[in-house]
Amino acid sequence: MSPLKPQDSQAVPRFCGIRTFMRLPHTTDLKGVDAALVGVPFDTGSTFRVGARFGPAAIRDASILLRPYNPSLDVDLSQLCSICDYGDLDVVPGFTEDSYSLIAAGLGKVLDAGAVPVLLGGDHSVTLPELRALHRIHGKVALLHLDAHSDTWDQYFGHPYTHGTPFRRAVEEGLVNPFGSVQAGLRGPLYGKNDLQEARDLGYTLVTCREMQEKGIPWTVQVIREKIGTQKVFCSFDLDVVDPAYAPGTSVPEPGGLSSGEALELIRGFGGLNFVGFDVVECLPPYDPTGITSLLAAHVAYEFLSLTAVGRGESF
Amino acid sequence: MSPLKPQDSQAVPRFCGIRTFMRLPHTTDLKGVDAALVGVPFDTGSTFRVGARFGPAAIRDASILLRPYNPSLDVDLSQLCSICDYGDLDVVPGFTEDSYSLIAAGLGKVLDAGAVPVLLGGDHSVTLPELRALHRIHGKVALLHLDAHSDTWDQYFGHPYTHGTPFRRAVEEGLVNPFGSVQAGLRGPLYGKNDLQEARDLGYTLVTCREMQEKGIPWTVQVIREKIGTQKVFCSFDLDVVDPAYAPGTSVPEPGGLSSGEALELIRGFGGLNFVGFDVVECLPPYDPTGITSLLAAHVAYEFLSLTAVGRGESF
Amino acid sequence: MSPLKPQDSQAVPRFCGIRTFMRLPHTTDLKGVDAALVGVPFDTGSTFRVGARFGPAAIRDASILLRPYNPSLDVDLSQLCSICDYGDLDVVPGFTEDSYSLIAAGLGKVLDAGAVPVLLGGDHSVTLPELRALHRIHGKVALLHLDAHSDTWDQYFGHPYTHGTPFRRAVEEGLVNPFGSVQAGLRGPLYGKNDLQEARDLGYTLVTCREMQEKGIPWTVQVIREKIGTQKVFCSFDLDVVDPAYAPGTSVPEPGGLSSGEALELIRGFGGLNFVGFDVVECLPPYDPTGITSLLAAHVAYEFLSLTAVGRGESF
Amino acid sequence: MSPLKPQDSQAVPRFCGIRTFMRLPHTTDLKGVDAALVGVPFDTGSTFRVGARFGPAAIRDASILLRPYNPSLDVDLSQLCSICDYGDLDVVPGFTEDSYSLIAAGLGKVLDAGAVPVLLGGDHSVTLPELRALHRIHGKVALLHLDAHSDTWDQYFGHPYTHGTPFRRAVEEGLVNPFGSVQAGLRGPLYGKNDLQEARDLGYTLVTCREMQEKGIPWTVQVIREKIGTQKVFCSFDLDVVDPAYAPGTSVPEPGGLSSGEALELIRGFGGLNFVGFDVVECLPPYDPTGITSLLAAHVAYEFLSLTAVGRGESF
Amino acid sequence: MSPLKPQDSQAVPRFCGIRTFMRLPHTTDLKGVDAALVGVPFDTGSTFRVGARFGPAAIRDASILLRPYNPSLDVDLSQLCSICDYGDLDVVPGFTEDSYSLIAAGLGKVLDAGAVPVLLGGDHSVTLPELRALHRIHGKVALLHLDAHSDTWDQYFGHPYTHGTPFRRAVEEGLVNPFGSVQAGLRGPLYGKNDLQEARDLGYTLVTCREMQEKGIPWTVQVIREKIGTQKVFCSFDLDVVDPAYAPGTSVPEPGGLSSGEALELIRGFGGLNFVGFDVVECLPPYDPTGITSLLAAHVAYEFLSLTAVGRGESF
Amino acid sequence: MSPLKPQDSQAVPRFCGIRTFMRLPHTTDLKGVDAALVGVPFDTGSTFRVGARFGPAAIRDASILLRPYNPSLDVDLSQLCSICDYGDLDVVPGFTEDSYSLIAAGLGKVLDAGAVPVLLGGDHSVTLPELRALHRIHGKVALLHLDAHSDTWDQYFGHPYTHGTPFRRAVEEGLVNPFGSVQAGLRGPLYGKNDLQEARDLGYTLVTCREMQEKGIPWTVQVIREKIGTQKVFCSFDLDVVDPAYAPGTSVPEPGGLSSGEALELIRGFGGLNFVGFDVVECLPPYDPTGITSLLAAHVAYEFLSLTAVGRGESF
Repeated sequence: MSPLKPQDSQAVPRFCGIRTFMRLPHTTDLKGVDAALVGVPFDTGSTFRVGARFGPAAIRDASILLRPYNPSLDVDLSQLCSICDYGDLDVVPGFTEDSYSLIAAGLGKVLDAGAVPVLLGGDHSVTLPELRALHRIHGKVALLHLDAHSDTWDQYFGHPYTHGTPFRRAVEEGLVNPFGSVQAGLRGPLYGKNDLQEARDLGYTLVTCREMQEKGIPWTVQVIREKIGTQKVFCSFDLDVVDPAYAPGTSVPEPGGLSSGEALELIRGFGGLNFVGFDVVECLPPYDPTGITSLLAAHVAYEFLSLTAVGRGESF
Repeated sequence: MSPLKPQDSQAVPRFCGIRTFMRLPHTTDLKGVDAALVGVPFDTGSTFRVGARFGPAAIRDASILLRPYNPSLDVDLSQLCSICDYGDLDVVPGFTEDSYSLIAAGLGKVLDAGAVPVLLGGDHSVTLPELRALHRIHGKVALLHLDAHSDTWDQYFGHPYTHGTPFRRAVEEGLVNPFGSVQAGLRGPLYGKNDLQEARDLGYTLVTCREMQEKGIPWTVQVIREKIGTQKVFCSFDLDVVDPAYAPGTSVPEPGGLSSGEALELIRGFGGLNFVGFDVVECLPPYDPTGITSLLAAHVAYEFLSLTAVGRGESF
Repeated sequence: MSPLKPQDSQAVPRFCGIRTFMRLPHTTDLKGVDAALVGVPFDTGSTFRVGARFGPAAIRDASILLRPYNPSLDVDLSQLCSICDYGDLDVVPGFTEDSYSLIAAGLGKVLDAGAVPVLLGGDHSVTLPELRALHRIHGKVALLHLDAHSDTWDQYFGHPYTHGTPFRRAVEEGLVNPFGSVQAGLRGPLYGKNDLQEARDLGYTLVTCREMQEKGIPWTVQVIREKIGTQKVFCSFDLDVVDPAYAPGTSVPEPGGLSSGEALELIRGFGGLNFVGFDVVECLPPYDPTGITSLLAAHVAYEFLSLTAVGRGESF
Repeated sequence: MSPLKPQDSQAVPRFCGIRTFMRLPHTTDLKGVDAALVGVPFDTGSTFRVGARFGPAAIRDASILLRPYNPSLDVDLSQLCSICDYGDLDVVPGFTEDSYSLIAAGLGKVLDAGAVPVLLGGDHSVTLPELRALHRIHGKVALLHLDAHSDTWDQYFGHPYTHGTPFRRAVEEGLVNPFGSVQAGLRGPLYGKNDLQEARDLGYTLVTCREMQEKGIPWTVQVIREKIGTQKVFCSFDLDVVDPAYAPGTSVPEPGGLSSGEALELIRGFGGLNFVGFDVVECLPPYDPTGITSLLAAHVAYEFLSLTAVGRGESF
Repeated sequence: MSPLKPQDSQAVPRFCGIRTFMRLPHTTDLKGVDAALVGVPFDTGSTFRVGARFGPAAIRDASILLRPYNPSLDVDLSQLCSICDYGDLDVVPGFTEDSYSLIAAGLGKVLDAGAVPVLLGGDHSVTLPELRALHRIHGKVALLHLDAHSDTWDQYFGHPYTHGTPFRRAVEEGLVNPFGSVQAGLRGPLYGKNDLQEARDLGYTLVTCREMQEKGIPWTVQVIREKIGTQKVFCSFDLDVVDPAYAPGTSVPEPGGLSSGEALELIRGFGGLNFVGFDVVECLPPYDPTGITSLLAAHVAYEFLSLTAVGRGESF
Repeated sequence: MSPLKPQDSQAVPRFCGIRTFMRLPHTTDLKGVDAALVGVPFDTGSTFRVGARFGPAAIRDASILLRPYNPSLDVDLSQLCSICDYGDLDVVPGFTEDSYSLIAAGLGKVLDAGAVPVLLGGDHSVTLPELRALHRIHGKVALLHLDAHSDTWDQYFGHPYTHGTPFRRAVEEGLVNPFGSVQAGLRGPLYGKNDLQEARDLGYTLVTCREMQEKGIPWTVQVIREKIGTQKVFCSFDLDVVDPAYAPGTSVPEPGGLSSGEALELIRGFGGLNFVGFDVVECLPPYDPTGITSLLAAHVAYEFLSLTAVGRGESF
C-alpha cells in the first residue's frame, strides 16, 4: 500500500473537502500506517467549563492550514510517514466509566495495529484510559506532562475520575513510572499548600512555569530529556499550559502561562525521545471565538506527528 | 417578617450589586416566602451541546433588567408576593444519578417550606428529579411541557437518564398524570416515524408547533387549559420551543419555532391554573453571545413568578 | 449646485471609500440640501448598557449596503433629493447638560439651513435637545414615538435628564403637543401599575405592542395617521421597539417585540405626513456582534430619507 | 450495494466522527445513490461580504443535529433513499471562469451517475455553472428561485459573472425557461426603478416578500406550483430570503424577510415537483457567531433531500 | 465571629451559587474582616469605550476559578484572613461628581471598619474619590500606579474629572505624596511632547513600559520598593498596562504592553509593602468575548488579597 | 496651504465624526502633503480566509485612538508633517489583474504628487501592483518585508497572482533589488524543504522568527539596516508576523510569532532609512472580534507615518 499523505494545498484549495486532520485520508485500516490522528470527543470529566467534545472537530478544521514540511525539525511528513486520520473513538457523553472502557478499547485497536497515536481531546480525564491502553501494550511508560495543573488531586465531589485526577490514578493503577516522569508548566492558585508536594510524593518531577520562564526553554528541555532518557514515553499536552491570551478556549484557564512560541520550542526539543503516543487536550471551541486555541492545538499535534518521523532517514 | 422584594432600579442602578434574580434577597430561609428562584446548574444529561451549568448565573445576570409590575397579568411582584433567590441546588458534574439525588433532596426543602419553586436549569434532564421531589409532596401532577422535543425517547447510548428521556421516565415512575398533561411546540426531524406516537402512547396530548402556528396561540391556550383543568400542574419550558433566532443558546436548536412574543403570550394565558412549580431549562450561555437567550429565560421566569401571584387580591 | 447623491455601487464596490452614510458626500455646507444625516454620538444618558456613542459610526458602516431606489415608497433618492452626511454633532461624554446645549445648537444650524435632519443616536436622552432645537424653528411639534418604553419616567437616581425621561421633559418644556402625539410599541415589565397611565396623563396616545400584534400594522398606521393629521411631526425610533432577535444591540432590550418587517411596514405607512425631522436611537455596536442592529438602523434611516422625498413629482 | 444511510445518533453521539453531512458516508462512487450532497466552496463572485468558501464545512458541522425522519413530509431518509456526501467540487479561489469550468465539470459527474444533487454553496455565482451542467443533461429547466434579490443585474464593475448576475446569464445562455420559472422573496432597496421590471422582462414571474407576507405561504406555494407544473425544476435557495435575525451570516442581508418557519413551510409545499437539483447558497460562517445560519442551511438541504424521496412508496 | 472564607470548590462545584468574589460570603458587616472586595461600577468618566459599569460583575464571575492557596506568595487565604465580598458601592450613572461623593462615602465605611479594600472598577476616574476616602483616614499616601497612561492630563473637553485626569487632581488635592509615588508601564502615543514631563513635574517617578521590558521586572520591583519604602501605599492597576492580547477588554488599549505573567510577577514583588488599599480598573466586559480580561482582573485582585496576608504568621 | 493635521481628541471626543485615519482631513488634493494614508480594499488574492476588503475601514476605526506625538521616535505628527487620508484606491473584487491595473494607476497619482504613501491592505497580493507603481517613479527599490511567510511561491492552483506569490513576481518583473532586501519573521510549516531556499535563491536575505527570538530585536534591526543601507526602500508589514494572540484577524495565522511589542520595537529601529512607501496588509475584521488586529495595524501605520517625519528638524 502506498503511504497515506495530506492533500496538496497548492493544487486543491485548503478549504475544499471533508475535514480530516491536514486533509489526510480518513481510514480505520492502519496497515502500514506510522501515525494516526485519533479524536476523543469526551468532556464529562470537566469540573468547570465544558465543550471539549467539540475539540476534535475544531482541531481538524484548523489543521487544514498545516503544510507538510516542518522546518524546525527538518521533517517532511509527506515524504517520511504514512499517516492518517482514524476518526473519533466512541464515547458515552455523561458516563465516564463507560467512556473509559470504550476509549481504552478503541485506542487498543490503534496500538495493536502498530500506529503511534496522536490523540485529540476531549478533557484531560481521557488520558487515564489512554494510559490504560498503552500499558497493555507497552507496560509502564514515562509521562511527559505539560500543563498548568498537576491533575493529581484525589477527587472532586467524592468522585475519583475527573479531569483533575488522572495522574494520581495513573500512578495508583501502575500505568506510569512517576520517577521517570515530568510535569512541567505548573502555576496558579491551589487548593492548599501541599498540592504540589503531593504530586512530588507520588514520584513526579515538577517544573513550575515560573522556573521555565526564569531558566528558559532550553534548560527545561534538558531537565526533561535527562529525566525521560530512553524510556517509552507518552506526552500529554494540556492547552492551558500556555497563557489564556494564546489559548482562551480551555476549561480552566490560568493567566501567566507560556507563549505559543515557548510551547512549540519546548516540544521541538524532544526529538529522538522514544514516544509511544501523544495527546493534546482541553480544546473548547465554544470559548474560542477567534479559533486560535484550536489552531495552536493543531500545531501541537503537527509537532507530535513530526516527532514520530524524526530520525527516519529514508523517504518513501 | 416583611415580604422580600426586588431592589428599586430607579434608586440604585440595575448594574449595581451582587447578582441575584431581579436583585431579590438571597436567602435559604423560606419562612413566609411565596415563591423562590432556584438554580439547577447541571448539564451532564446533554447529548449534544453543553454549558447549561452556567445557565442560572446568566439568567440572574439578565434578570436585573426586570421591573416589578407585569402589565400583561396585572401583577405587581413587589406588592403581592414575598419572593427570594434561594441560590443553586448542589449537583455533581459528570454524575447524573448522584445529582438527581441532590436535586430531589434540595428541592424537597424548598417544597417543604411551602414556597413555589421557579427553577432555572440546567439541561432538561433535571426535570425528572424535580418531578420526584414534587411527587413526594403533591402526588401525581399534570405536566405542561413546552418544547421542540417530546423528550420521551427511551434511552441514549443505552442509558436511561439524559435530557432526551425525562418525560418517559416520569410516566414510568408514576410522577405525572400523562392523560391530563400536554406537550406543546413539537417540531423538527425525528429518529423515526413513531417517535411522536410513542409520546401519545404514554398518554400525553401533543400540540405540534405547526398546529400552534396555524391555529394560533389563543387556540393553544384553550387546548391546554381544558386538558389541565384544576389539576396541580408543573410547567417545564425548554427554550428551544422558540426559534433559534430568539434563543440561539440552547443545546439542540431547531429552526421554525415560535417567536418570543408567541411564547410569552402562551405563558400569560395560563393565569389561574394551579401551579405547583415551574422550570425554564436549556439556557447555554457559551452559545449566546448577544445574551438574548438568557434574557428570554429571565422573562419566562418572571412570567412564572407572576402566575404565582395572579388572583392574590391583597397587597402587603 | 448639483444635487448630492450616493456613490454608484455597481461602479465602485460598496466597501471602498470613507464611510459616510450611503457613501453620500460629507459636507456641512447645506445649501440646496433637502435632507441631512446627522450623528449624535452621546450615551451618558443611559441607565443600563452603554456604547451608543459608537452608534453613528456603525450605522454608517452598515448603510453602504443601501441602494438608492426604495420600491416600497416608489422613491429614488438619487433622482429626487439632494442629501448629504453632515457628520456628527459635538458632545461632551460624561456631561449631559453640556451635551444638550451642544446638540441643540448643532442641530439648530442644520435646521436653519432648511435641511430635514435624520439623526443617528446616541441613547434616547438626545431626543430632548433635538426637540428643543426643533421647537425654536417649528414651535410645538407632534411626536411619533416608536419604542418599547414610554420614556416618561420622572427621574432616575434623582436626576431629570436620562434616556428614560425625555418625553416627560418634552411635555413639561412645551416642546411637543402630546395631545396630537402617539407612543407605539410599548411592552414589558414596568416599575408600577401607573407607569403607562402617567404617560397618558401627560396627553400622549399610547398603542401597546400587544395591540399592534393583535390588530395589525395597517390598523396601527391608521391610528397614528389620524392622530398626527397635518401637524408638523418628529419621528423618534428606538430600536428596542423590535424584538431582541432583530435588534440585540440596544440598551434595554425587551423580548416580545415587533419583527423588522413589521417595523419597516409601519414606517412606510407614514408617507405624506409633514415630517420636520427623525431620529433612530439606541444602537449599541458592542452588543451587536452580527451587525443586524446597525443594519436595521440604517434601513430605518433610509426609510426616513425616503419619506422626505415622497410626493416630490420631479426628478432633478 | 446496500443503501447509504446516516449514522444512528442514539447509538454514537452526534458530535463523534468525521464531519460529513448528517454523518452520511463520504464517497464519490455514486452507484445506486439517489441523492448526493455536494459542496461548492467558492466565493469570489461576491460583491460585498466574503467567506462563503467556508459554507459547506459549516453546513456539514450543523447537519449532525439532523434526524432521519421528516415528519412534515412523512419521509424517512434512512428507509427510502440511498444518500451520500460527495465532498466538495474543486474550485480556484480568485478565478471565476476557471472555477465555473471546474464546477460544471464536477457536477456533471454527479449528474451522469444519476444522483440528484443537493449543492451547498458558496456564493450565488455558483448557480450559473450548476445550471450549465444541468442543461447538458436535462436541457432547459425551470427555476424556482428563493431570494431577497433577483440577481438579474447585467454586470458589476463591468464584469458579467458575479453573485448578482447569474439569473440574467442563465436566460441569455438558454439554460432555464424563464417563462416557467419563479423568483420569490424579493425585497429591499434597488439600484433603480426598473430593476424588477428587467427581471420580468427576461420572462421570470416575480413574487415579492411583501406579497408573500400579505397573502401567506400557502398562496405562494400555489402560485409557484402552478407556474412550475411538471417541468424539470432546479431550486436555488439564497439564505438572505429569510430575515437577518434568522440568517445573519449572509453576504448581502436585507431586513424585513421571512422567518425560518415560513421558509421551511414554503419548501415543504413543493412535494411532488419534478426536481433535478437544488442548491442552498450564501452561508458565510465568519458572520454567523451563533451558527443559526448554517443550521438553517442544513435544514434547507435536509428538506431538499426529503423532497427527492417524496412519493417513493417502498422502503429498502 | 469565625473568619469568612471562600467556598470549597472540591466539595461544591465552582459554578454553583450566587456570584460573589471567590464565592466568599457577601456581607456589609465588616467586624473582624481583614480585607473586603468592593465593586465600583462606574464608567461615566471614560472618554472612549464605555462598559466598565459591568466590570465588577464580570470579575466576580471569573473569580470563581480562584483557589485559596497562593503559591507565589506562600499565602493561604482560607487560613490567614477573614475576607468578604462587600458588594458594590452606590453610584449615579451619568453624574460624576454625585458618584464621587457616594464612592468616597461608601468606601469610608469600609475603611472605618478597618478592612483593607480591594476595589473592582469601574473606569479609572473612580480612583480619585477612593483616594479622597483614604486621605481622610490615612492622610497623604504613596501611589503605586500601574498603567499604560499617566492619567495626569489636565482636562478633557474642558472638564476636570474623567478617567484621564485623576492623578493630577490627586496631587492638586493633596491626597497623595507624588515624590514617594511611582507610575509604571507608560507607553503609546501622546498628545504632546510634554505629556510625560508634566507628570514628572507633578512629582511622580515614571517607569516606562520600554524600560521595564529592557531592564526586567526584578529591576522594576526594586525601583518601586525603594521609592515607596515604608509609606502607606495605595496600588492602582489599570488593566491596559498589559498588552491588548492579554486584556482586550479595556477602554483605551495600547499595543506593546506587558504580558500577564510580567504583570503578576510585578505585583508579587510587593510583599511587605504597607498597603492601605488597591484597585483594579478598566475592565469592560462588552469588549472581552473570551473573558480573559476579567479573568486577569480577578487574578490581580487575588494577588492584592494575598499581599494583605503576607507576613501574617498565624493561621486561624 | 496650511498643513493637514489630525483633530484634537481633547477638544472633540475621539468617537465623533466621519472615520478617517486619525481623523485626518480626507482629501485627494495632495499638494504640500508629506504622507498620505491610502486604503487598498482588495482580497481576491487570498488562498484561505477572506475579508481583508474590510481592512481599511477597520483600521481607520481603530486609528481614532492614536495621539499625534510618538515618544518612541520623538516625532510630533501634528507639528512636523502635513498628512491626510486619501481614501481608498478603486478595485474590482473578484478580478485580480483588473484590480492590479487600478491599484498601480491609483497609487501612481499619489506618488506623482510627491506624497509618501502608507497603504492599508487588503491581502498581500496588493503589494505587487504597489511595487509596480513605485518602480515607475523610483526604479528598483529595496524591500523590507516583515511576514511569517516569504510569499515567494511560484503559483497557487496554476495562477501567478495571489497573496502567496508577490515577492517572486516582484523579482521576476525587476521591481525590487532582492540582493539589498530582507524578509524577516519567517516561520511555520512549509510545502517543502526548499521553500525558503528558493526565496534565498531569488536573492533575498532571510531572517527567521526563531533567529529574531534568539538574537533579539536590536540584532535584527542591525541586520536589516546594514542590508538596506541608503537604498530607497519599501516596507511591507504582514500582520501575521506577530503571533495570532496579538493578531487573530489575519488570513493565514501561524502560532509562535512576535509579540506586538517586538514588532513595534523592530519598526521603530528603522528611523533614518530612505523610505519611499509602506504597507500593512492582511487585516481581516471578520476574524477580529476584539479589534486588536486592526488596532495593531493602526499603530503600525502610525509608526510608518512617524518614520516619514524622523529627522525633520523644523515644525510648521
